[in-house]
Amino acid sequence: MMDLTEHELSSDTLYDGGLFKVKRDVVRLPNDNTSHRIYVTHPGAVVIVPILANGHIVLERQYRYALREAFIELPAGKIDANEAPLHTGQRELLEETGYTGTDWVKLGLQHPCIGYSNEVIHTYLARGLTAGAHQRDPDETLEVFELSFSACMDMIKNGEITDGKTIIALFLAEKYLLDHGN
Amino acid sequence: MMDLTEHELSSDTLYDGGLFKVKRDVVRLPNDNTSHRIYVTHPGAVVIVPILANGHIVLERQYRYALREAFIELPAGKIDANEAPLHTGQRELLEETGYTGTDWVKLGLQHPCIGYSNEVIHTYLARGLTAGAHQRDPDETLEVFELSFSACMDMIKNGEITDGKTIIALFLAEKYLLDHGN
Repeated sequence: MMDLTEHELSSDTLYDGGLFKVKRDVVRLPNDNTSHRIYVTHPGAVVIVPILANGHIVLERQYRYALREAFIELPAGKIDANEAPLHTGQRELLEETGYTGTDWVKLGLQHPCIGYSNEVIHTYLARGLTAGAHQRDPDETLEVFELSFSACMDMIKNGEITDGKTIIALFLAEKYLLDHGN
Repeated sequence: MMDLTEHELSSDTLYDGGLFKVKRDVVRLPNDNTSHRIYVTHPGAVVIVPILANGHIVLERQYRYALREAFIELPAGKIDANEAPLHTGQRELLEETGYTGTDWVKLGLQHPCIGYSNEVIHTYLARGLTAGAHQRDPDETLEVFELSFSACMDMIKNGEITDGKTIIALFLAEKYLLDHGN
């Protein structure tokens, strides 16, 4: 394998907005030419596939302003400073849906946007779910509902679910359940 | 279904970098409170699943500076101004790998980063492939190789492929090929 590494020569922060920063780095390319890379830094996130005892998946419908559209997606959220990803998953599932789970399985990592963001999304399966009261902020408006696994797959195939993290998490869950039984 | 729409009250461009802009909009929430949304605008992109006559997939290994890591990914690229997505796919496949394809199938859309980007990625299957000379820029360093479909699936399951657009495109291709035969 070739060494494809681009080496940092200098780094500037163009924008620092709390949620994310925009950086512009000058880099030395493998062919020794100089170029620059503009990218977003992000604290990382967690997405959860919550599977109920009846096999249904807990989903959300949420407005995403960047795309001016409501999306069907799995519960997810950003990792707080010094927070373990599993704890982020348990916290976000409770806050957004009210569910707590007794059985958590790590399904892997996904990188949503390797061209211009360093975000990594930790992906978990959550089972042994008990319903409770959600802890959503008054400004956080979302709908929670459940759907069979096969209906989720149909909605991916027919384009009703297009959110990347949700498609990947359901795909990893499908493979995990096939390999390990339900 | 609830009306979850957030209405734009004002919009500022915080950063305009050619590749993408960073915007900060003030919005009216469904509960009539005011908040703000920071997000990136992006021209959109195309990812291609190139399937050779032997069933193997054409892949790339490319360094992604934002994550300081080389990734295994499918051929992909940004949509030029006023370019049709299918043309972007045909152009990028040729430029990056040298392949041209006679049979293109639209597999759908994916939204990689709905929390803070308006990027949409158009996803295509390409078959009837003929090898030729790539047209990579001297500064564009990447390795092109081929792998069986089942080896791709194994690399997703064991975490060797974590690039979001690549996982989703292979997943959509798997479902398409199952539904429509090879």
